[in-house]
This record gives sequence, structure tokens and C-alpha cells, in this order.
Amino acid sequence: MVLELYLDLLSQPCRAIYIFAKKNNIPFQMHTVELRKGEHLSDAFAQVNPMKKVPAMKDGGFTLCERESYLNKYSQEHLPTSVAIFTLGSVAILLYLAHKYKVPDHWYPQDLQARARVDEYLAWQHTTLRRSCLRTLWHKVMFPVFLGEQIRPEMLAATLADLDVNVQVLEDQFLQDKDFLVGPHISLADVVAITELMHPVGGGCPVFEGRPRLAAWYRRVEAAVGKDLFLEAHEVILKVRDCPPADPVIKQKLMPRVLTMIQ
Amino acid sequence: MVLELYLDLLSQPCRAIYIFAKKNNIPFQMHTVELRKGEHLSDAFAQVNPMKKVPAMKDGGFTLCERESYLNKYSQEHLPTSVAIFTLGSVAILLYLAHKYKVPDHWYPQDLQARARVDEYLAWQHTTLRRSCLRTLWHKVMFPVFLGEQIRPEMLAATLADLDVNVQVLEDQFLQDKDFLVGPHISLADVVAITELMHPVGGGCPVFEGRPRLAAWYRRVEAAVGKDLFLEAHEVILKVRDCPPADPVIKQKLMPRVLTMIQ
Repeated sequence: MVLELYLDLLSQPCRAIYIFAKKNNIPFQMHTVELRKGEHLSDAFAQVNPMKKVPAMKDGGFTLCERESYLNKYSQEHLPTSVAIFTLGSVAILLYLAHKYKVPDHWYPQDLQARARVDEYLAWQHTTLRRSCLRTLWHKVMFPVFLGEQIRPEMLAATLADLDVNVQVLEDQFLQDKDFLVGPHISLADVVAITELMHPVGGGCPVFEGRPRLAAWYRRVEAAVGKDLFLEAHEVILKVRDCPPADPVIKQKLMPRVLTMIQ
Repeated sequence: MVLELYLDLLSQPCRAIYIFAKKNNIPFQMHTVELRKGEHLSDAFAQVNPMKKVPAMKDGGFTLCERESYLNKYSQEHLPTSVAIFTLGSVAILLYLAHKYKVPDHWYPQDLQARARVDEYLAWQHTTLRRSCLRTLWHKVMFPVFLGEQIRPEMLAATLADLDVNVQVLEDQFLQDKDFLVGPHISLADVVAITELMHPVGGGCPVFEGRPRLAAWYRRVEAAVGKDLFLEAHEVILKVRDCPPADPVIKQKLMPRVLTMIQ
């Protein structure tokens, strides 16, 4: 039975999984779940992931998917304003694919120290870079352009300052003077990081400007992945600013889910 | 050269590492870094972890440690109020130990699906259960008792509501009707989860009350770890409410670091 991936390339963890699977010739059947059409909220998709989030993976009877902390199943009444609601089932999917398909070692090295550095990056980014990149896209594009909702200027400023700091940590503490985040070869950490950064790039933030080390790393990652695959995976996000406004019915469906992102 | 662990058993990821290493007879030299005395802020400890956080691990010339997002190196000026500052180098340490010391398979199974379930839990908890348990301890004990700072009642209420929801997700979505989080045997996921839950227990929250499935799981985890080791690892947290107030000099040192926890 072929592996099934439920993705929308608008989502950064979906892009990481897509690039990783394609680059490693992992055979899969792709099901596009268009977030902007609310397809993830359909009853049909709830059969795959009751949490109604992408990415999701089905391998025969085994499913791995993004889990939300609790927004769907439980009341939102007590939601603290600062809770981070996005968690990373996608890391579990990437590791599952790396193990199952015995991909080249550099992606998730057997070497203990190199592997620990990949694990360290994957743990770090959950609450830091991922959060800033996602909020940047929503505050710059998804709320004002797609949903027609204004973001307070001070909130946008805080989001961009947060992004700036996290990108700097990525460069100074993780990349340093190496070719890739964990050493001389591309690893899962690079794919997860680059797909994040393309979110603010799609939102019109020049994150590589004034950061020559990071810009050179970007070019190395793009070359290691393959330019065609890289562009194919990022086509949606690079055009996101041209998206038409949401249909009012869709907007109404989406709003309860995304409101925490303007808190 | 013997493995060195820098821990304070007041910290939940430190307890997870301590229990895991002891239970698996991993030889290590323990360096206690007393957080309540500000020992993590010393110049000596900064040589081990420039981020000045525990846990940290040194294995010869190789160091793995908690990284903070950026509070130390960068200005706090732009800190968004909702950023989650605790990230999990401790997961990287646990995985490193599991790989290096070839611990029994059940801790981090070779079986692809079981391993993916451990990875999924370890990814989920960063922004959810870990955050609530930590905030609960700080809001119930560390601020009012240790630092003599009052917490607004509505903030404490939000923290406890958040905790309640995350504990429910742990029970309903992860534990379900299994003996342990990932199946019939104890894994890294259980040790990470139980050490979290002992934070609110230490803070006086009866998280197992009215949750018989979770309470039975608690007893199974305690038995699998060994009652003596479990109690030894949790002695500090179970006595935390009796701690004397901080010395004013220490308090002044600690406050800049912990302020984000009352936002």
C-alpha cells in the first residue's frame, strides 16, 4: 500500500516533508488539502486527522499527523492568550520517513554528535523560529490580504522584531561558520529551517538581506535540494501575496481557528 | 572520560535525564547546579553552558545543553509578551544517551511506528504540557513563596485552566487505554511526561485526582522506574513549598530571567 501524504504547500512543515520525500525518491500519493478553501475542516479529512490539520501521513493503517494542543476538542474559553498552539507532528513524520526509507546518512546521521545536533535544532525551533515565521506570514498577508482583517501596527512590529531575533539566533548559534546547520552536509535541520524562512520571504520580508552567511547557506540548501524541486515546493508561498480575498463563508469557517494568531 | 551531567532536580527535564541515566546504569558524574542559589548564573557554569541553563551534558569535548531562545545574548527590549522561552535541549540529551548507551529497546523503540509515537509525544509537549506545568509551579510557589511576588488571580486561573486541558489531552489522546504512553512498555515519553506532572504535584495541584486512568499510569511508571529512584529524583520538588524565601541579592539576579513567566 502506497504511503499517503496530506499536504498543502502553503504550510511550512508540509513543504519540508514534500521536499524531503521527493528528494529521496520516497514513493507517495499526494492529497492536496487546500487550507485556504477550508478543506482541512471537511468531514472527509477529519477521517484522516481528527485534529483537522496538515500535514498528515497514512502508511497503511498507521497515521501520523499534526496535533493541535487542544483548540478543536476542547473549549477555547480558558485559552491563555500566550499559548503556542502549533506543535510538530511533522517532525515525527520526517523522522519516520528517514528511518523507514533508509535515506542517505547525512539527513539524520548515525554519528551520535551530529544526530544530537539535528535533534537539538528540531527541538529548538518549535517555540522560536517556527512561531515567528508563521506569525509573520499571518500578520503581513493572511490577515490583511486574505481575511481582510487589520493587524495592530504594534503587534506587527513585535512579530517582526521577534522574527529578526530568531533569524539571528539561527545564524549565530546554529549555522555559525559551517556550510549547513549541522556540518558539511545537508540534514533534516536545514530543510525544516529553510522552509520556515520562506514563509516571511513569501510575506515580503527580506530575511537574507544584510546576512551574507545566511544568504550563502540558503543558496547551498537550494542547490543541495535541487533548484527545480525547491521552486516547485515554494511556488505557492512565493505567490501568496497575490491571493484573492477569502470567500465570506470560508472566512467564517477559518476565523475561530486563526484568532489565536492575533493575540 | 566520564560523562558529566549538570542538573538541578528542581527542574523537570533534569529529573527526566537523572531518572533515565540512573535506571539504565549509565555512569555519570553529577554536578548539582542550584537554581535557587543562582549557581546557573555563575561564570564557572557559563563555561559549560553559555546560555546558563540546566540541564547540560558534557561528554569529553562534546556539550549538549538547554538553549534559550535569545534572552541572554540579545536585548529583551523587543521581547513579545507571549514568546515561550523554554526549549528542549533536554530531548537531545535523552536521545543522545539512549543511542550511545544502547539502552533496552522499549525506551526508544526500533519499531518504526512505536518510535514515531515517542517522537510525536516529545514534539507535542514542548509548547503544551511542559509550558503549563512550569508556569503552574512558578505561579503557585516560586513567585509567591520563593520570590515574594504576587500573581494576579486571573493569571493563576488561566494557568490552571491551561494545565487542566493539557493533562486531559495527555490522558485522552496520548495515554488512552494503554499501559504506557506508547504501548505496553515504558518509554522516554513516559519519563518526560511524569517528571512534568510532578511539577504541579509539587505545587499542590492534585492532577491525578478524578483521573483514574492517569493515576494508574502514574503508579505503573513509578513501579517501572523503581519507587526508590522515583522518590529520590522527586524529593526536591515534593518539598518545594517549604523552601525559604530567596535572599534579596539572589532574587535580584533571578528576576530578569523569570519575568517572562508572569506575562
